[in-house]
Formats: sequence, C-alpha cells, structure tokens
Amino acid sequence: MSSFGRVYRVTTWGESHCAGVGCVLDGLPAGFPLSRDDIQQQLSRRRPGQSSLTTPRQEADEVEVLSGLQDGLTLGTPVALLVRNTDIRPQDYKDMTEVPRPGHADFTYVAKYGINSKSGGGRASARETIGRVAAGAVARKYLKDKLGVEIVAWVESIGHISLSSEFQWTGLSEEMVDTLGSFAMYSHEGRNYYRDLTGNWLDDQGQRTGAVPTSGEGSTILMRCPDPTTAIQMAELVQEVKAAKDSIGGIVRCVVRNAPAGLGEPCFDKLPALLAHAMISIPATKGFEFGSGFEGTKMRGSQHNDPFVMTEKGLQPATNHAGGTLGGISTGAQITFRVAFKPVSTIGLPQETVSFSGEKLVLEAKGRHDPCVVPRAPVIVESMAAMVLLDAHLMQCTRHS
Amino acid sequence: MSSFGRVYRVTTWGESHCAGVGCVLDGLPAGFPLSRDDIQQQLSRRRPGQSSLTTPRQEADEVEVLSGLQDGLTLGTPVALLVRNTDIRPQDYKDMTEVPRPGHADFTYVAKYGINSKSGGGRASARETIGRVAAGAVARKYLKDKLGVEIVAWVESIGHISLSSEFQWTGLSEEMVDTLGSFAMYSHEGRNYYRDLTGNWLDDQGQRTGAVPTSGEGSTILMRCPDPTTAIQMAELVQEVKAAKDSIGGIVRCVVRNAPAGLGEPCFDKLPALLAHAMISIPATKGFEFGSGFEGTKMRGSQHNDPFVMTEKGLQPATNHAGGTLGGISTGAQITFRVAFKPVSTIGLPQETVSFSGEKLVLEAKGRHDPCVVPRAPVIVESMAAMVLLDAHLMQCTRHS
Amino acid sequence: MSSFGRVYRVTTWGESHCAGVGCVLDGLPAGFPLSRDDIQQQLSRRRPGQSSLTTPRQEADEVEVLSGLQDGLTLGTPVALLVRNTDIRPQDYKDMTEVPRPGHADFTYVAKYGINSKSGGGRASARETIGRVAAGAVARKYLKDKLGVEIVAWVESIGHISLSSEFQWTGLSEEMVDTLGSFAMYSHEGRNYYRDLTGNWLDDQGQRTGAVPTSGEGSTILMRCPDPTTAIQMAELVQEVKAAKDSIGGIVRCVVRNAPAGLGEPCFDKLPALLAHAMISIPATKGFEFGSGFEGTKMRGSQHNDPFVMTEKGLQPATNHAGGTLGGISTGAQITFRVAFKPVSTIGLPQETVSFSGEKLVLEAKGRHDPCVVPRAPVIVESMAAMVLLDAHLMQCTRHS
Amino acid sequence: MSSFGRVYRVTTWGESHCAGVGCVLDGLPAGFPLSRDDIQQQLSRRRPGQSSLTTPRQEADEVEVLSGLQDGLTLGTPVALLVRNTDIRPQDYKDMTEVPRPGHADFTYVAKYGINSKSGGGRASARETIGRVAAGAVARKYLKDKLGVEIVAWVESIGHISLSSEFQWTGLSEEMVDTLGSFAMYSHEGRNYYRDLTGNWLDDQGQRTGAVPTSGEGSTILMRCPDPTTAIQMAELVQEVKAAKDSIGGIVRCVVRNAPAGLGEPCFDKLPALLAHAMISIPATKGFEFGSGFEGTKMRGSQHNDPFVMTEKGLQPATNHAGGTLGGISTGAQITFRVAFKPVSTIGLPQETVSFSGEKLVLEAKGRHDPCVVPRAPVIVESMAAMVLLDAHLMQCTRHS
Repeated sequence: MSSFGRVYRVTTWGESHCAGVGCVLDGLPAGFPLSRDDIQQQLSRRRPGQSSLTTPRQEADEVEVLSGLQDGLTLGTPVALLVRNTDIRPQDYKDMTEVPRPGHADFTYVAKYGINSKSGGGRASARETIGRVAAGAVARKYLKDKLGVEIVAWVESIGHISLSSEFQWTGLSEEMVDTLGSFAMYSHEGRNYYRDLTGNWLDDQGQRTGAVPTSGEGSTILMRCPDPTTAIQMAELVQEVKAAKDSIGGIVRCVVRNAPAGLGEPCFDKLPALLAHAMISIPATKGFEFGSGFEGTKMRGSQHNDPFVMTEKGLQPATNHAGGTLGGISTGAQITFRVAFKPVSTIGLPQETVSFSGEKLVLEAKGRHDPCVVPRAPVIVESMAAMVLLDAHLMQCTRHS
Repeated sequence: MSSFGRVYRVTTWGESHCAGVGCVLDGLPAGFPLSRDDIQQQLSRRRPGQSSLTTPRQEADEVEVLSGLQDGLTLGTPVALLVRNTDIRPQDYKDMTEVPRPGHADFTYVAKYGINSKSGGGRASARETIGRVAAGAVARKYLKDKLGVEIVAWVESIGHISLSSEFQWTGLSEEMVDTLGSFAMYSHEGRNYYRDLTGNWLDDQGQRTGAVPTSGEGSTILMRCPDPTTAIQMAELVQEVKAAKDSIGGIVRCVVRNAPAGLGEPCFDKLPALLAHAMISIPATKGFEFGSGFEGTKMRGSQHNDPFVMTEKGLQPATNHAGGTLGGISTGAQITFRVAFKPVSTIGLPQETVSFSGEKLVLEAKGRHDPCVVPRAPVIVESMAAMVLLDAHLMQCTRHS
Repeated sequence: MSSFGRVYRVTTWGESHCAGVGCVLDGLPAGFPLSRDDIQQQLSRRRPGQSSLTTPRQEADEVEVLSGLQDGLTLGTPVALLVRNTDIRPQDYKDMTEVPRPGHADFTYVAKYGINSKSGGGRASARETIGRVAAGAVARKYLKDKLGVEIVAWVESIGHISLSSEFQWTGLSEEMVDTLGSFAMYSHEGRNYYRDLTGNWLDDQGQRTGAVPTSGEGSTILMRCPDPTTAIQMAELVQEVKAAKDSIGGIVRCVVRNAPAGLGEPCFDKLPALLAHAMISIPATKGFEFGSGFEGTKMRGSQHNDPFVMTEKGLQPATNHAGGTLGGISTGAQITFRVAFKPVSTIGLPQETVSFSGEKLVLEAKGRHDPCVVPRAPVIVESMAAMVLLDAHLMQCTRHS
Repeated sequence: MSSFGRVYRVTTWGESHCAGVGCVLDGLPAGFPLSRDDIQQQLSRRRPGQSSLTTPRQEADEVEVLSGLQDGLTLGTPVALLVRNTDIRPQDYKDMTEVPRPGHADFTYVAKYGINSKSGGGRASARETIGRVAAGAVARKYLKDKLGVEIVAWVESIGHISLSSEFQWTGLSEEMVDTLGSFAMYSHEGRNYYRDLTGNWLDDQGQRTGAVPTSGEGSTILMRCPDPTTAIQMAELVQEVKAAKDSIGGIVRCVVRNAPAGLGEPCFDKLPALLAHAMISIPATKGFEFGSGFEGTKMRGSQHNDPFVMTEKGLQPATNHAGGTLGGISTGAQITFRVAFKPVSTIGLPQETVSFSGEKLVLEAKGRHDPCVVPRAPVIVESMAAMVLLDAHLMQCTRHS
C-alpha cells in the first residue's frame, strides 16, 4: 500500500508522468507552527539539478499546501500537499513499453499489474520521494520544536571512496566515554563533526567545495560529505563515472540526536525494524545496518555490550555499539544507522538485453539521469527517519497510563 | 504493536516468565491441509538445547492448537497457538530489577513502560520467537503446497569464520546464465548447494558433523552451515568463546526459491522493505542487506544491472545482483538476503556497570544462555520470510481485476 | 483517522475553507476502465444547488484526476483526486470563533484540537463528502463492470412524510418467493420499483416532478423518492420548513443487488458492521438498521428466519428479513438497510445559546444552508456502500486458497 | 479480520467446538491495576445458564490470564486470555453439514470459505462474545479507574413489551436542564435511574424479581431491565415464547457517563461510527441509533439543536438530542445509543427449508439455545462500548502537541 506509519500516517501518490505527485499527512498533532516554507526548504534539498553532477531535469518542485494549515498552525486535520510535474517528456521513455530496462521496475510492474504503461514503473520514479521528503519535513519540524530532536545524514562513501577512519564511527573511542549520549565525536579543523553536523552545514560545505575544478566546467558540486578532502575525491569519481556514461553507488549514514528514551515497541515494531522498513523502502537501497552492524557480528559480547554509567541526564550507555536502542526501544543515546544505495540503473552505456517478446537487442537509454543519486539521498534518509520517529513518539504518548 | 502483516496478520504474545507464549494467525486461506505436526516440526528446529553449544534451558516447547483447524484443514478462522512456559526460574533473573544488564532491554522497558518487572524486558526474550516460528511454519506450508515456494537459510559466518568464497554468492558466475532463476549454484562433493539446500539437510548435516571432537565431550554440534569444513571451524570458535564465558555473533543468509513474480508493492511496502522490517524485528539483529547489499555500492551500474534473457519460464534476469526484486517487486528470480546477528548480551564474564540508582558494581550473569544464537537463527529468519511472502501473495490476490 | 477500508483504502482531506478537498484511492485493481467522467457524474449528483430547495452555494465541483490513470485504465497505483474550493466566504462563518453553533462541531473541534479555527469544525462540513462520493464512484464502476453489482438509494421519508406501505419493504410478499434474490418487488404504474430502480431514474424522476408548483417560483425539485405522489408531499414539507427558516430530517433506504455471496468477515468486520461504520460516519446521521431492523425485534424467530429454497442461482433465502447477510457474511440476496438523517443544524431561526466564554446571546445564522439534506444523501449512501463492498470483495479474493 | 481497534487492539479467536476461545489485548497502557477477577466478573455476567430462561448449556467460562500481568499490574505487553470449551456436544449440530439452518451462518460460511465444517459458522457462535467481554472488562476497568467513565446498558424492550415512557429517553425534560451532562434522569421509587443505574444494580434487581412465579418452577429471572414491573412482563413473554418453542428479540440501551470531550475523529472514525461498527458486529444485531435516532428525523432543527449553557464543568449542551457527540466527537455529555437484537435463529419449532443439495425437508433443531438473548446482551454492549472508548481515548492522547 502507499501509506506508512500508524498514528502519523503518510500516504503518497503520483507517477513521474501524471499531473503531479503529493501526499496526505494524517494524524498530525494540532496547533503547532508549520509553514509552506518549512516543507519547501526540504524539497529544495531533494531537488535534482543542484549540481552539474546530477540530473539536468529541471523542475521547480514548488509545493502547494492544499489543506490542514491555518494562520501558520496545523489544524490537526490532514495536510494535503501537491507538487505538479512540469517537465514531462514521455518520449524519452517510450522504449520501455517494448523493452524492460535492466535494473528498473518496468518488468515487475507488468508482472504485478498486467499493465505496460508509458511511464514504466511509474511509482518507482525518484519523483516518488517528493512525498517522503514533504512528510519528513513536517515530522522533522515537530520533533525539533517540541522535543529538540535533530536528524542529520551524510554521504559516507561513493564507490570505493570512503570517509577516512577518523570520520567513521567506531564506538570505542576514549572521547566517547567523556561524551555520553553521543555515539562519536571527532575534531576536524576545530569542529566536532558528528555532534554539530547539520544538514544545512553539509549543504553549505558542498557548495563551498564546488569551487574545486572537478569538471573543468566551473560547476558546483554538492556531495554532502563532511570531510572536504574526501568530498572532492568523491566528486572526481562521480565525474569520471559520468564521463564513462556509467553510474555508481554509495553509503549514507544517519544520526539522530536527542531522541527520547522509550520509543519503539517490543517484537515487530522495534524502532530499528521500523527504520529498516523505512530505509529499504527508499528507491535504490540495498542494505541497512544500525549501531555495530555487520562488523558487529565479529565482536565478542564483552566488547559489544555497552555498560551503563550515570550522567547528568540520568543513566546512559557509556558506549554505543547498540546504535541507540536496546530490545528495539530507544535508550536516549544517539541513534545511528547506514543505508546502502546501488548504482542507479539508468546508464548511457549500451546494454545487451531482450525485449518483452524475447528479442535480443542493445538498449541505449536517452532519458535524463544522475550518474550517482547518493548526494541527494541524505535528505530522503533524514525524512524517512523523521517519519518513523514522530510516529513512534505519538505511539509512545499512548503507553503511559 | 504485537502484530505483523496486512492480510496474513500474526499477533504474538507472552513473556519469558508468564504462563506461556503464543500467537494468533488471522487471514489464513481456508481449506488447506495443516496439522499440529507441521508447526511442531519447525518449533523443534528453533528449540534451545539441540547441541552442547547452546543454552541448556530445557523446554519441550510443545505447541497446542487452540482453534482454526478441523479435520486437518484450516477453517479460515484464526489459528490460535499456545506453548506453555515450563522451565521458569525467576530467581536467575532477580538482579535485573536493580541492575539493567548491558546490551539487554531491562533499561529501555523501564523507560518505555515505567515498570521494572521481574522478567526485565520480558518480551525481548528469545522465547518471543516461538510465535514467529509457529506463524512462519504455517505460512511456509501454504507457500510450499500451493506455490512451490522454498525458503532456506543457513549460517554464513560466525565471528570472523566465514563460508569460503566458493560457497558465497557472486551473482556473476557462468553457471548462473545456465540456471536462470537461481542466484547461484555451486558444486561441492557433487551437491548443488544453493539450489538443493533445504533446512532438513542443514539440520542433518549439522548432526553429522557432531562426531567431530570439537569439545572433547562427544557432544553434538548443529551449526546449520552448508560446508562441513567451515562448520567445524565455526563450532570450534563457539567452543572457545563459550570457554571464555563470552559470546559471538554471525551472519545468516536466506534464499527464497520459486517465489512468483509480482509480490510486493511500490513505495513503502516494497518486498525488501517488508523483509527488512521482519528481519530487523528479530532479537539481536544489527543489519540487513539483499542482493548485492553494501558491496553493491562499489559497483558500476553497467556491472550491477541484471540484463534480461528469455527462458522457458519466460523473461528473467540473467544475473541477480538485484536479489530477486526490481522496484520492490519480485521478479521470479531467487530472493536472497543476509541478516547480521550481534554477540548475545548475556555473558558469563564480569561486567562493570551501574545499577538503576547509579551505584557502580560488577555484574556476573548466572542465567542460562547461549554463547552464540546464530545456529538457531536460520529457522527464525526462514519463518519471518515466510510470513512476509504469504502476506505479499495474499495482497497480490487483490491486485488483478 | 481520515482513511477507510483495508485493501481498497480511501483517504480524504480538506476543509470547507482551504484550497480544496480531495482523496487518495489506494489498493485499486489495475487495468480496469475508469475515466474522469465516471467520477464527475457522481459528484454532480452530490452537488448542492440542484434545486431551489437546497443550498444556493454554487460550486462547480470539477474534479481533477492527479494520478493513477493512463489511457483510460487504472494503473493499480493510487488515484489522487482534487476538487478546488471556489466559493469560500469565510466572513459568513466568522461568528463561530466566538460562539459554538448548536448542533455543529465547533465546540467539539475546540475540545479535541485546542484550536478555534475560522472554519469551525472544518472537516465536519458537507464538502467533506466530496471525497466519499469520488471514492464511491470508482468503487461503483468496478463493482458494476466486473461483478454486475448495482447499488441504489432513495429517500424513504422526510419528517413524518413517508413512502406509503406499498413502497416499503416487508420481506414477506408472495412475489418475493417468485423473485428470489430481490428483497422486494412492487408494481406501480407498471414499474417494478425496487428491482429496476436506478440512481439515474430517481434523478430524472425528481426533475420531472419539478414541474409541480410547490414553491410558486417554477423551481425544480429533486427529492429522489420513487413515488411521485409522496415526492411532491415531501417537497411541499421542505418548502414549508424552508419558509419557517427551520430544517427537517429524513430516512434513506439503500439496496444492493447482485452482491456475491461470501463478502464480510466473522466477528468484527461483519459486512453490516462495516456498512454501519460507513453510514454512521456520514455527517448528520443518527441511525442505521438493516434487514428487519428495529421492527424485527418484535418478531418471533419462526417468522424472522428466512428459509432456504433452491433457485436457478443455487440455494437462496426465500425471504429476506436478514437484509442480505447471515453471520455478517453476504448470502447473495439483496442487501438492504436504512440510514436516519437528523434535521440540519444550520437554521435561520434565532437560537438562544452561549458563547465560548459563557455569555448568553441569540444566534442567527447567516451562512448558506439546506433546509433538508436528505435528497442529496442517497448518492453519499450509495458511495459509502460501494466503498465497503469493493473492499470486502478484495478481501474475499484472499480467502480462498 | 478478527481484530478491532487502532491502539487498544483486540484480537479474538475460537470456535464453539474447538479447544477454547480467547483474545489478545494489545496496546494497553502499562502499570495500571488489573486482576483476573476484574475479567472473570464480567464474563460471569455474560455466561449462559444464569436463569431458567436462557440456554441450559453449562460452562464455567473460567478465564486464564496467560500473559501481560505481573504483581497485579499490566506490563504494557499483550494480555492473552483463554477460556476453554468444556461442554462440547458436536452431535447436537451434526445436521448442519447437510442442512443450512435458516437464520444461521452455516450457509454463508460455506459461501465464504468453501468449507462445510462440523460446527457450521463456528465463529458466529455466541461463545465468540467471550473475547469481547474479556476485552471490554479490561477497558472498562481502565476507563473507570483513570477517567471515571461509567458504562451501563439495560434491556429497553423485549418484543412489543417496552419500558414505559417515563423510563425512556426524551431529551426534553425539565430536569435535564438542571442536570447538565446527563441525558435523562427519572425518579422511580426514589431512585434516579439513568443517573445511578449500574450493571451490578441491574444484575441484582434481576435476581430479586426472580421470586416472581413466572414459570411455576421457582426459577430465577434476570431481565436486566430497570423497571421491575416491566421486567416481569418481559419475563412472562419470554416464558411464553419458550413454551411455544419459538424465540423473540428486543432492544438494549447503553449510556456512557463522564466520557471526556474530544474523543472520536472527524470523517470516518467518528465516535458514533466506531460505536456503530462495534455494536453491529455483535451477533444477532439488526440496528443501531444514537441520540435522537430514527425518531429524530421527524424533528425540526430548531427542536433538535442542543443549545449550549455554561455549567460548573464548563460549556455543555443543555439538552442531548445529539446523544453525546457533535461532528462525531464527544461533547462531555452522556453518550447514549440503542441496539436492536433479532429473535435468535435457533428455535424448537419445525422449519420447512432445503438441504445444501436442494432437497426439501423439515428441520427441527435439537441443540441448546436461548429463547431470548437480549437479557445477556447488555454486558456485551457495554464491553464493546468500553473497547471503543478506550481506543478513542488512547488515540486522543496523540492529538495534542
């Protein structure tokens, strides 16, 4: 179904080639300040065309608030949002009614619906994520205003280029014992990155590194990677991949600060399970891990267990291999997880494949596409995290008698 | 909440220290053959005490079918199942009302519910998985009988001991082109492992390798690892960890064969997203990846895209980096994913931590525990996969007009 | 929440004074013919201003299909619909921020949301039913095309003016035995009313009786009552009530023909329970009864039980006191129920009441309003019935293995 | 499906002829006092065999609490309850595999599930209501303890014998203006019935009137009707119907006192809509009306509108034609509604009908049955009301930011 969440219930709709995309946000608490700008601001972070490395598809993505707000406050009724599709060029995609593109959903949409539509797997378009970002923008605003929750995600790797180890989470540093509640804190040029990092800073930083002559075209580059040196290497790799008419994947890390303890349910609706559901529902994802993740399987319990210490905020885990939850319920420590994104499926290189009727052919995509969607992914990851956390918070409001 | 699924809706209940655990299975199609034995058989695979390496807690885990069956057929009404707790020793756990165990849910249950119960995070007990396995046993039976779907999971690694590369999935082998629909096929001593592997074979194989003198006690070892050589190394590692009063994690791979194309929904309820939700809801999990997973982020799109070929079964992807889905919807190819399990939190080693009131102390667990739960995890992984697939299949029944 | 249904899941949004109202229709089967006109046609039946007796608020209620359709077929993806509000006159309602109107939701919206909005209980506006009618139009189209289901509702009474007994359901007529599957069949001027009655016929008939000089203004009257004589009496009553600046209620009957047997679930989701939920969720309703209803409580079991007879369609109840279901599940006989509508709350007469601050005052409404909404209610009743039946049908698709 | 509610989510299971019936109660707040006795007490009120007029089927209906409680408090985890079936006599029902009983679900269960089970429409048995009463007992306890909510239902009519008008709700009495918040208050022998009435009082009163020689057998009669004179007339009617081997229906009224304002949602989940769903899901119901109900359709708006007055509790409606809600949301006034119950389908009289194969025959039921279930219905009505209200209350906890 096209809905997500139990109390904060988000329903999205829209294909890439219909009149628009949008969402309905149900279950929002009434009376909290929310404006169209709060939403537009995040949509603009998601928008393609922010740098020369991403898709040149130019869409303003101007959101219209159709309902649920009055005088700058939520009414408690559903907030309906609409973003019109303004740059539809169906002829770019016409082949896909005859040839299922490798790595795309054209094939499976036909298997599922028995319909071979002009827009292929229309809901599988990246434009579907507009509804997610809009829904997340609203959740994020509430979480920040009411609970002080901060959510930030960044690019940790592109292909084999990864943030150097000093920027990576280990869960074992000396500093961590000093900075309880944070899962990591590293100094770099005087900044405590994981603690202070914000989406805006990452956006700005990306713009700053845009001066680097990566493409010779004076283009801006927005990698959303906290380390400028690595960001430039990543940008160069993406340029190289683009020149080769190919594509490349990467990994996004997300950190949630100040989430209250007690969120998430035992059993099926553990907080990490809801996050996993949310993240793997993002197009092009291949993996999710939280806290120690796959590497944690190699640890001994005596290393992995996070002992408790008493802090001014009360009892807290001293380290954070857990990633911010125990038994699926938040501890109050930072929640951290990683999401893997595959190389995007639309490439310029010719591909040998077959048509729906089985005829062998060579496919050359002409449509607009990014060589790497990873720098645009953090805002989507943050948005889905915000949706999960607001929903979990509202559920938790029902748990105390 | 304690329910999972939309049409095949499973609700579980029970703590480790109450009268029992159980589940209610709603939405089952009527009139298909199902017996208590179908369920008991899977529960026995989950049961602790199968080898000298796992917890000595002895519980028969005899399931009682309370409703929903008659004359060996499902009635279409809810199937309620009950497994009584027979080996409750609350005194083993009494400390946890004063001291939250590191890595356990004692702390977060108090944060969530404001209750410091004798059983700590009672729903976080491994016994909670009984309901999952029972629910999965029923789903598995249906999927196999009606659709020929086979689900098998095995241990791929324990700590740093991993199946050698010849047993691992690559997605690129020559054989794969010949064996479309399978994601991998390797010969070992004349067996095509990933193609033929069944849970029973893994169970038997585990027993066979039990003759290996791993502990000097003549004990049986059930690793559920397809390669006997690796299985023995794994068993030795677990023995070593056990001797050190510590614990160790590992990775389980699951493969689903013969799943029909078209399962899963666009957007939020993509099949991999539902699987991620299901898997990360299993206690002690830290990560989920499907198809190419985190490694896939390093590939180029031209490598990662699975071209289509025409087969006797119709169009199919020639390789399977996708892991069996495109756009979140099954292709008909094998569905494959991996789940990371952390080292279990209960260890015999003393741990420095603090009590709820902040008093520093050294905790030494006396309760029963496994040094490594990974060999018991495959049946749980298979069960959750079966629940997801049956639910997705039933949803898909509503999608064609 | 603002959603209804389990598989055919409808979410509505919009207040009377925001940009518009609309809905998202999720879970629709793919590939069935649907056009904007199918929806607009039903919306036009709901629209106010169809006769001189109803509200003069003039709104075109032109629907825009934002997604989910292509080339005249459903894609299987969500259908999003938008109807803009074009005739907003907030000044008509400005008093309600200070004075909660008797019978209106102004008071309870403040109690619920803590917000005293300009539009009062904005979601309680009759415009909210636009989303219901649109959602019902789509369901109705599917049910008719695929299953031959026909749904028709009409006005049975206005105030004390009621259809004469020959037009009322008895469940015991001789003819019924001859016409199994119908719950009643009466001849009137050569027509078999309940059997042949359609919404269009009722609409037309209403227009025809419009020539009757009920108001002396030559205005048209659309009562949607199958008996022209009674329709005129009803219209005269409404005229009288209107002249008195008062309002009046009435009762709508609905009949569903050709619904397949087997729809509805045991226990909580019985078909009549879902219908009751749907009907009592319509604004201004006060009661729901199906089959023999409240009168049936006075019957003996030997009278009330509907014996079975063998027909060409197979076994069927010979009479239909049950109203088309047994144990909550449809029998294949006609489903019939009645819905009570209160007199609308907005009246021209002065009302003694108090402001939110407790000040006594006399309230005189100046806003636009109907003296009687009942003639506009049948299409809403039909629409909600269609939503319930399509959802029940899709659920039933999952019940056979 | 077999679940009800959104946050307080109740799942029931069990047929009349399997091992037992039961329910799982999910979403309960943690830490409130609850004992097995709280549940057993209500189950005993539901139990057949309380008087000579009801079914002689003797079942202790002893409930076992399987999970979710510890030391007399809820844990916040699911409460699972089990009542074993102890008086199964399948031979009483054996005919129904060949002959669908008129008025019963045998026919529709076959239509739905394709299974002709020994127990016919097993989930349609009155024993299914055990789960409802257990779930309601828990909700009722919470509502009473935490919010002071009182729920009481009674028999208003049996067949044509009805409470005299002085006991009936009018909504217009002088006293009502004096007793704001109550929807009616009548003095009878010094008691203010609707204000003071409790389930226990009704139970006791029923016992007291048991001395009346209604059957000549010295049997007790429990009519749960607040007026002793009417109760005796009702009991005599039931005796007469019983002697005639027939059955009779009736009407139950329910009143909820002290429900907080703000419960219920706009649109689909209006509080009366949820109540309608809940009530019409009870076996043998045919109608639901709240507040002025069907009679209200004959009123003018100027009569029906409840003006507001300022009271010590704040603003309240002066009268209560609305029945306790406006726009689907509770006002704080008494919530009142009526539920119609048909004559039970199992009768001793011979019935002409046909077998599944179409053979004409005369059916004479031999199974155990009540001539009138209405006196046992109030506790079920109260229970469903409690489930709805607790769920609405918990939802409302999420609505304020």
